[in-house]
Amino acid sequence: MSGSVFGNIFKISTWGESHGKALGVVIDGCPAGVELNEEIIQKDMDRRKPGASKYGTKRSEGDKVQILSGVFEGKTTGTPISLVVFNEDQRSRDYSNIMNVYRPGHADFGFDSKYGFRDYRGGGRSSGRETAARVAAGAVAKACLKELGVDIFAFTRSVGKVSCETFDRDEITANPLCMSDREACEKAAALMDDAMKNGDSVGGVIEGRISGLPVGIGETVFDKLDAVLAKAIMSIGAVKGIEFGAGFSVALLRGSENNDPFVIREGKPEKAANNSGGILGGMSDGNEVVFRAAFKPTPSILIPQKTINRNMEETEIVIKGRHDPIIVPRAVVVVESMAAVAVFDLMLMNMSSRMDNIKNFYNKGV
Amino acid sequence: MSGSVFGNIFKISTWGESHGKALGVVIDGCPAGVELNEEIIQKDMDRRKPGASKYGTKRSEGDKVQILSGVFEGKTTGTPISLVVFNEDQRSRDYSNIMNVYRPGHADFGFDSKYGFRDYRGGGRSSGRETAARVAAGAVAKACLKELGVDIFAFTRSVGKVSCETFDRDEITANPLCMSDREACEKAAALMDDAMKNGDSVGGVIEGRISGLPVGIGETVFDKLDAVLAKAIMSIGAVKGIEFGAGFSVALLRGSENNDPFVIREGKPEKAANNSGGILGGMSDGNEVVFRAAFKPTPSILIPQKTINRNMEETEIVIKGRHDPIIVPRAVVVVESMAAVAVFDLMLMNMSSRMDNIKNFYNKGV
Amino acid sequence: MSGSVFGNIFKISTWGESHGKALGVVIDGCPAGVELNEEIIQKDMDRRKPGASKYGTKRSEGDKVQILSGVFEGKTTGTPISLVVFNEDQRSRDYSNIMNVYRPGHADFGFDSKYGFRDYRGGGRSSGRETAARVAAGAVAKACLKELGVDIFAFTRSVGKVSCETFDRDEITANPLCMSDREACEKAAALMDDAMKNGDSVGGVIEGRISGLPVGIGETVFDKLDAVLAKAIMSIGAVKGIEFGAGFSVALLRGSENNDPFVIREGKPEKAANNSGGILGGMSDGNEVVFRAAFKPTPSILIPQKTINRNMEETEIVIKGRHDPIIVPRAVVVVESMAAVAVFDLMLMNMSSRMDNIKNFYNKGV
Amino acid sequence: MSGSVFGNIFKISTWGESHGKALGVVIDGCPAGVELNEEIIQKDMDRRKPGASKYGTKRSEGDKVQILSGVFEGKTTGTPISLVVFNEDQRSRDYSNIMNVYRPGHADFGFDSKYGFRDYRGGGRSSGRETAARVAAGAVAKACLKELGVDIFAFTRSVGKVSCETFDRDEITANPLCMSDREACEKAAALMDDAMKNGDSVGGVIEGRISGLPVGIGETVFDKLDAVLAKAIMSIGAVKGIEFGAGFSVALLRGSENNDPFVIREGKPEKAANNSGGILGGMSDGNEVVFRAAFKPTPSILIPQKTINRNMEETEIVIKGRHDPIIVPRAVVVVESMAAVAVFDLMLMNMSSRMDNIKNFYNKGV
Repeated sequence: MSGSVFGNIFKISTWGESHGKALGVVIDGCPAGVELNEEIIQKDMDRRKPGASKYGTKRSEGDKVQILSGVFEGKTTGTPISLVVFNEDQRSRDYSNIMNVYRPGHADFGFDSKYGFRDYRGGGRSSGRETAARVAAGAVAKACLKELGVDIFAFTRSVGKVSCETFDRDEITANPLCMSDREACEKAAALMDDAMKNGDSVGGVIEGRISGLPVGIGETVFDKLDAVLAKAIMSIGAVKGIEFGAGFSVALLRGSENNDPFVIREGKPEKAANNSGGILGGMSDGNEVVFRAAFKPTPSILIPQKTINRNMEETEIVIKGRHDPIIVPRAVVVVESMAAVAVFDLMLMNMSSRMDNIKNFYNKGV
Repeated sequence: MSGSVFGNIFKISTWGESHGKALGVVIDGCPAGVELNEEIIQKDMDRRKPGASKYGTKRSEGDKVQILSGVFEGKTTGTPISLVVFNEDQRSRDYSNIMNVYRPGHADFGFDSKYGFRDYRGGGRSSGRETAARVAAGAVAKACLKELGVDIFAFTRSVGKVSCETFDRDEITANPLCMSDREACEKAAALMDDAMKNGDSVGGVIEGRISGLPVGIGETVFDKLDAVLAKAIMSIGAVKGIEFGAGFSVALLRGSENNDPFVIREGKPEKAANNSGGILGGMSDGNEVVFRAAFKPTPSILIPQKTINRNMEETEIVIKGRHDPIIVPRAVVVVESMAAVAVFDLMLMNMSSRMDNIKNFYNKGV
Repeated sequence: MSGSVFGNIFKISTWGESHGKALGVVIDGCPAGVELNEEIIQKDMDRRKPGASKYGTKRSEGDKVQILSGVFEGKTTGTPISLVVFNEDQRSRDYSNIMNVYRPGHADFGFDSKYGFRDYRGGGRSSGRETAARVAAGAVAKACLKELGVDIFAFTRSVGKVSCETFDRDEITANPLCMSDREACEKAAALMDDAMKNGDSVGGVIEGRISGLPVGIGETVFDKLDAVLAKAIMSIGAVKGIEFGAGFSVALLRGSENNDPFVIREGKPEKAANNSGGILGGMSDGNEVVFRAAFKPTPSILIPQKTINRNMEETEIVIKGRHDPIIVPRAVVVVESMAAVAVFDLMLMNMSSRMDNIKNFYNKGV
Repeated sequence: MSGSVFGNIFKISTWGESHGKALGVVIDGCPAGVELNEEIIQKDMDRRKPGASKYGTKRSEGDKVQILSGVFEGKTTGTPISLVVFNEDQRSRDYSNIMNVYRPGHADFGFDSKYGFRDYRGGGRSSGRETAARVAAGAVAKACLKELGVDIFAFTRSVGKVSCETFDRDEITANPLCMSDREACEKAAALMDDAMKNGDSVGGVIEGRISGLPVGIGETVFDKLDAVLAKAIMSIGAVKGIEFGAGFSVALLRGSENNDPFVIREGKPEKAANNSGGILGGMSDGNEVVFRAAFKPTPSILIPQKTINRNMEETEIVIKGRHDPIIVPRAVVVVESMAAVAVFDLMLMNMSSRMDNIKNFYNKGV
């Protein structure tokens, strides 16, 4: 098991290396009858695509997704959906500087230790490019969730020390850093320019939000909504932490401060605050699900770094080539995608939780 | 799928409600030949047991674990291990105040919404008591890991605003709050006394550490070591966030600050700092694995709270009975246990990663 | 993974050895709201119980099942159901004749080779007694299926060369061999008496039938209804073959003979014959599902047998003790149970196959 | 879950429809370091390829497999292997005769019932063409097994009433029906010619054999070697039964006849006969594993047939186009492939069965 499969019912199996022929994903368990075509998926692919702004790598790939199976006459058929993106830009390069040397902050050392050798071309399977397949799968999950009235989006909460102070959803897709606050974006851009000038990189935080979830999504013990989301998001390279609702700050609160009283608003149950981030006891509680993930700065920097090589000798490495000075903006859609895959799978799992519902289901005559 | 199964090869299936007849776990996939008896498991059970100090509930349960299968003549046989703890203290109580009312910060509302009704006695399956089964399973995983030279421990990093400043491993088991710093523990105790006096509760942070892991444990994409640990730890009730190594602070750093250079120390590869928390690209990197989890304050407080009832009417609730004023100290061994289950499972998964190793394995004649 | 877990959504995890303290099963994923109590389960346990007739072992166990979790006020709660049967009859015995010797037709040799040692008491985990846990789980699955109008039953099709010629469902529970034909049963009894007189044993065939299944249960490729049933049934010890509908005889037919024309009967689609055994393309086709499993004769016979010991020396073994002269009659309820677990799980999986159904499900307000 | 994923550690996820753009498979969990290239896989693809003889369909596809990921410099890297076959021959056809009519013996009716509509082009996902992906995956599993000294092959045991009387392994690949007996093949060919002349089809039996397996492969309860093989083989379309060793005939035997005494031959433990088919208690027992699967006659025949249409009206159908008059010969390599996938996965699972082996493994320094 190389751990490239995610989900129980809506099960995705991703594949592909940075500089291989192609990347892709097979989705087993997508329900039949969902409207799907390449344009729907491509929209999200384009949000992740490199080269969209000066803060993304210059790699000029089209990242054109193709649907190879599972869709007939514009609708999913219930059979596996195979999505593929062929790598167009595979110029041969000189990898001699990283072939035998372990880049700090990268998987190189672990890979060689685990497998005895590695595909050293651009990080191989551990490249950020791997996330293209996640986005393709996520776009399908989002198409499903949309039919169920569930909305998922993410945005750049902070870049380095610069945080969004205001929230304007339209702004997220309008600025190159995917921030919800234009002013913060401008400050962040200045900070980025400074880092880039020095060949350095910056970290940041992405916030995800999910609304429209029915109450009770997520399972009580190991497959809690937050636990499954945590795995989904933490599995994205460069994420070093995740928190829900009030998050780490709950450790500083008293119970009387942190507990959200339930209230009735417009006839509906809600919580007065949303410290829980929309999740109680591992199940959605009716409020918006809110989480934040911390991304480390891009480990590939132009500044020379100390490290070791395959012979266990200390050495220095100078990394060349195209590298994003920040991972966060391109990762926004990846966070959305993984959240969508996780949440839709839990919604399908939830369908078998009550016998009365199952009886209704089968009496209606499938 | 009610989501009470965890793991791929070392697979645990927990069961039991707070006020049912018993709680327990079945472990499928424990290797044969591991020395195991009830005393080994009981040691960890006793660390979680209520009533150990004034900061734990007064419930005077023996929490005596029994091995019902899978062990023969003091060794595991390779067949499923069934562990059970019978509930001794099942006095009938008056649940009328919570039967039809949703306690803030609890799973009650989600449970009723999901299933149409719930076992309202003491939280049912969503009780902290559910973690007894995790600890039993974790003790078995730890017995296995010990044979492989892997050491896992956890401690209370902070209680409310009081953090450990020093680290003394012996101190962890010597003080009632499981802190690594006696002075901090005393301050925290004062803070706790104040909260208890007011019928309130406090939150805190638990830190976990894993050493002795071979390099390369964890899989490259979805089953990253940190992703699997995140799910394992986030699945513990009351956890609202998790971070690895430098954690959320990486968002504030530049690449040149955050990247750990590899160095050779005493002939062995290590990282100069350990910002990565012992994990790069989802695989163990040879340094100690370090993570921190934020626990919310106990939601059951003695202070009257506003909430709603099953009829969707606003009301007030007064929670009575035995409740820990803090979850953290008793959760320390739970964190260890879940980490042990997660890590041991990944070590077993890793065994099939290389054909040369598989050939060696089978040539040796199983 | 010791392979004691079965199912995807309705997931059972069995445990226990023949002469250990107890045997049992944990069911994760049983829907909430199913009426369940120990009597319902005990009924099936009693059908498998040893000592019911002279053709069963004399072991006088009560085989009393206990529900330890997952049921509240007579209904399943949606949380894991733990079922246990304590072994009452654990007289210490003399195992010296089988401890170091491999019984022909048994798992002994494989066990020692795989694990390095084994629990030699009565076959340990590989005892027929292991099936008690399957029957307990199956009774729960059957209770669920009953609510959905699905009926599963099995009967002894043949004992040695004696086959049922007639079918009377009431007869199945009325005679000691569970045959559908009283006359055949009498002939089979004579055949059994002859075998027993010689210390020998006999084989036979069990037929299973499932009616009331909606069309379309089972998945198209690997999780075909017949493939999943085949695994479920073949996993019962002593089964050496399984066939569906016309079974092995299809190999002798021409397409024009074997193809079942669809017809309309009383306004409903059916097949003229049922050569397919109710399954086409891995999915239920609306007709009764019919399968047959071949059981080998009990390998424990009183006749002295040649074999080898742990030192790889040839030797002779004389098996003593209580052993059924035929496995088949007590296995009838085991076949029903495994079929029920397999089919109910596939029915739950099927619920997420169509987006229109999922939308209906969630709009109805879970 | 559409059930197109098979295996636990060596996990394959197949996709593709008969007349879609392509078919393929993603293999997650193939160990690193296995020599692999397209030629190795193509050899098996060519054995399944249509048009090889007059007994196969005339579809002139190249069935050229491409490796899109997971292989670097001629060796597997431990990351997912994506294999694809593009469909070359996609002439547009007239499907009006099957679009709204349910072909007898086919999945059409089940598909429409389950999903509400279907990809009617050539059977869609339920086409025999789906097995191309299984063969590609199986070729990789066979490459792995070869390194472990495990040999798997299959052959046509019988065609209609004509069975092989002799066994010549070389003959299997030398004659168009993959029989082990040239004389039988000639008789079978005559029988086939007669069926074809009448627009009819014939069934048959495929036998599979596995040698070189270490003792103890397979798990004790649900994941028995025979149970897993049964699921693997029964999941191939058109298989209606499977049996191991003496198979269904054991039902007619007495224990004293069926029990295989263990003997020592050339210093090694073996069984005198091999009635068990190389499997005892669900584990390999050191003898050759032997199984047989019954295949029904091709359901697509040229003879007009009665059936019903989507409006639930009785009608007649005349199937045109290219259809094999027998499924068996092309399915031989499919049987081998599924057996290889199943067995290799169980060998990987077996690696974690003993702590002494695990300790050896990790001390050797991965």
